[in-house]
Amino acid sequence: MAGYISTRAQIRGSVMENAIILGESVIGEETLIDSWAYVGYPTRRKLKRIPKKIEELDSISDGAKIGRSCLIRSFTIIYEGAELGDRVETGHGVLIRERSRIGSNSRIGSFSQLDGEVHVGENVNIQSMVYLPHLTWIDDNVFIGPNVIVTNDRYPVSRRLRGVRIGRGAVIGAGAVLIAGIEVGENSVIAAGSIVTKDVPANSMVMGAPARVRLSRMEYEERKKLYEARGDDVPG
Amino acid sequence: MAGYISTRAQIRGSVMENAIILGESVIGEETLIDSWAYVGYPTRRKLKRIPKKIEELDSISDGAKIGRSCLIRSFTIIYEGAELGDRVETGHGVLIRERSRIGSNSRIGSFSQLDGEVHVGENVNIQSMVYLPHLTWIDDNVFIGPNVIVTNDRYPVSRRLRGVRIGRGAVIGAGAVLIAGIEVGENSVIAAGSIVTKDVPANSMVMGAPARVRLSRMEYEERKKLYEARGDDVPG
Amino acid sequence: MAGYISTRAQIRGSVMENAIILGESVIGEETLIDSWAYVGYPTRRKLKRIPKKIEELDSISDGAKIGRSCLIRSFTIIYEGAELGDRVETGHGVLIRERSRIGSNSRIGSFSQLDGEVHVGENVNIQSMVYLPHLTWIDDNVFIGPNVIVTNDRYPVSRRLRGVRIGRGAVIGAGAVLIAGIEVGENSVIAAGSIVTKDVPANSMVMGAPARVRLSRMEYEERKKLYEARGDDVPG
Repeated sequence: MAGYISTRAQIRGSVMENAIILGESVIGEETLIDSWAYVGYPTRRKLKRIPKKIEELDSISDGAKIGRSCLIRSFTIIYEGAELGDRVETGHGVLIRERSRIGSNSRIGSFSQLDGEVHVGENVNIQSMVYLPHLTWIDDNVFIGPNVIVTNDRYPVSRRLRGVRIGRGAVIGAGAVLIAGIEVGENSVIAAGSIVTKDVPANSMVMGAPARVRLSRMEYEERKKLYEARGDDVPG
Repeated sequence: MAGYISTRAQIRGSVMENAIILGESVIGEETLIDSWAYVGYPTRRKLKRIPKKIEELDSISDGAKIGRSCLIRSFTIIYEGAELGDRVETGHGVLIRERSRIGSNSRIGSFSQLDGEVHVGENVNIQSMVYLPHLTWIDDNVFIGPNVIVTNDRYPVSRRLRGVRIGRGAVIGAGAVLIAGIEVGENSVIAAGSIVTKDVPANSMVMGAPARVRLSRMEYEERKKLYEARGDDVPG
Repeated sequence: MAGYISTRAQIRGSVMENAIILGESVIGEETLIDSWAYVGYPTRRKLKRIPKKIEELDSISDGAKIGRSCLIRSFTIIYEGAELGDRVETGHGVLIRERSRIGSNSRIGSFSQLDGEVHVGENVNIQSMVYLPHLTWIDDNVFIGPNVIVTNDRYPVSRRLRGVRIGRGAVIGAGAVLIAGIEVGENSVIAAGSIVTKDVPANSMVMGAPARVRLSRMEYEERKKLYEARGDDVPG
């Protein structure tokens, strides 16, 4: 057995021969599930008895739903219960856990993780090596740079998980760490490497550790225009 | 050949058909080795001659030992000479190098690496994307948040590697960087995003870059209780 | 189908049975392509029509060139158009995108990414989980610690990408973030966890967020000698 497709799966797109599709997964038209991708991975609580064959894993999987014209690259793992909209792309080695939702036209970079119930809106661009834990909520049109780390427990290890909410149009720079429970306002910008411990006001740009407001989004956009046009590098 | 199980391996648990198990590996009762997991990967020094077939890789591998009731998920790589206790779980894409030891009931999150001889005690919870280099020592009951990076050379690239030692019950927040040779005291807490350049006293909470003591563990626990009960977010 | 080797590929080394080699890839003498490695992965723009079989992916791939005596470990993905010199080693899960070049005797650590057109010189040592975006240029003899993140857009999301250039002999500490467009001078050192927003002078050592010059390379080397010889830990 190189790959495996459940007899319960609805395959309208294309599945490479050594991919695995378990349970009642739905693969939309014009979608590619590439070699060594795994769709419908069973959740932990289903694994009380150790399966002997992949058919047993298949029988306990509810499957995942993947829309039309998606591209699911090699080594991506999508758990049962996850739902992806249309024209979603994943890089390689992306992990999407159960109950996560990804809106249409969004992209998840290589080796990024949606590690629990994570909401990703439409037209969201998540770069590589991003970590999004359980309860993270990302609105439409957000950009998240590489290696951004979001947390969900302000005083680990506590019994209270609080998701981070990232508002529409926000831009999160590379390597930023977002602490549990904060709200990142619409159209705000977080500079690379910031440690964000408090809510970020809408339409503002924050920087530092802990991050503080430095600019408005409008000022940021003005600097961006200079950067694009003249090559000036104005440090924020 | 989709998977491969060495004739020298002792398989008491369950190995999915397209996993690879090399050498004298021992897989305990009720343990699952999932699809596309690789157990008994040969160390670098064994690869002087390039093998033509997996049987040659198999013949040079001493195998790895995995205890009972473990869950080794897809894309995990466990080198020869590694030993895992009972009820150990790995996420996806976990890398466990030769001579690493993992105590019982510990969990290693997806795409984390034990990159050399690493000691992990019992009941340790290591989240996703954590990097633990050669000589790292982690006592029992430690929690390590996502993307924590530990180093082992204070003045790279030197000839002197010094492991970080993390004491029993310590909590390391997301994205913290721990510099080579430090000792993190028992029950201490390191805030997310800290750069830890010096020893951390036991029962204290440190924060910042470079990290300094801000609270005692007792004060931290009091704040945690408020956070859990009332929803107050008291910045550290 | 467990693995696949294109009829157009030139295989002079050794390819494990469940690896995939597409297109006119060239695999040099004494090179090992290990199980579940993927060489010649097609670029995005080639995937306008969704392939039904791996033979179609193969037919659109130009292949990758890999030199002699290389070691390409499991779960590594090398895109079409990439070129690796001789004696290059990759860890596990390394991603090397189209048009990247890696000079001879260089090593890329597990789960690191060359995410676009990236130049890596000779004798470069890149540790695990390093992110190098499109346009990054790394000269010979550079050392890059684990989880170093390089960016290529100073005001994301802009229309102007600017690569980071890392000069010969530079040493980049773990977890450092390098902002788009900077030049890291020859033989400079960047301390672990630094956020580097400006050019780094040659032969200097920088630290902090934002990073500032603290030492010369010569002073750094003196401290390194003490560290190696006596065990003194002189904080930078």
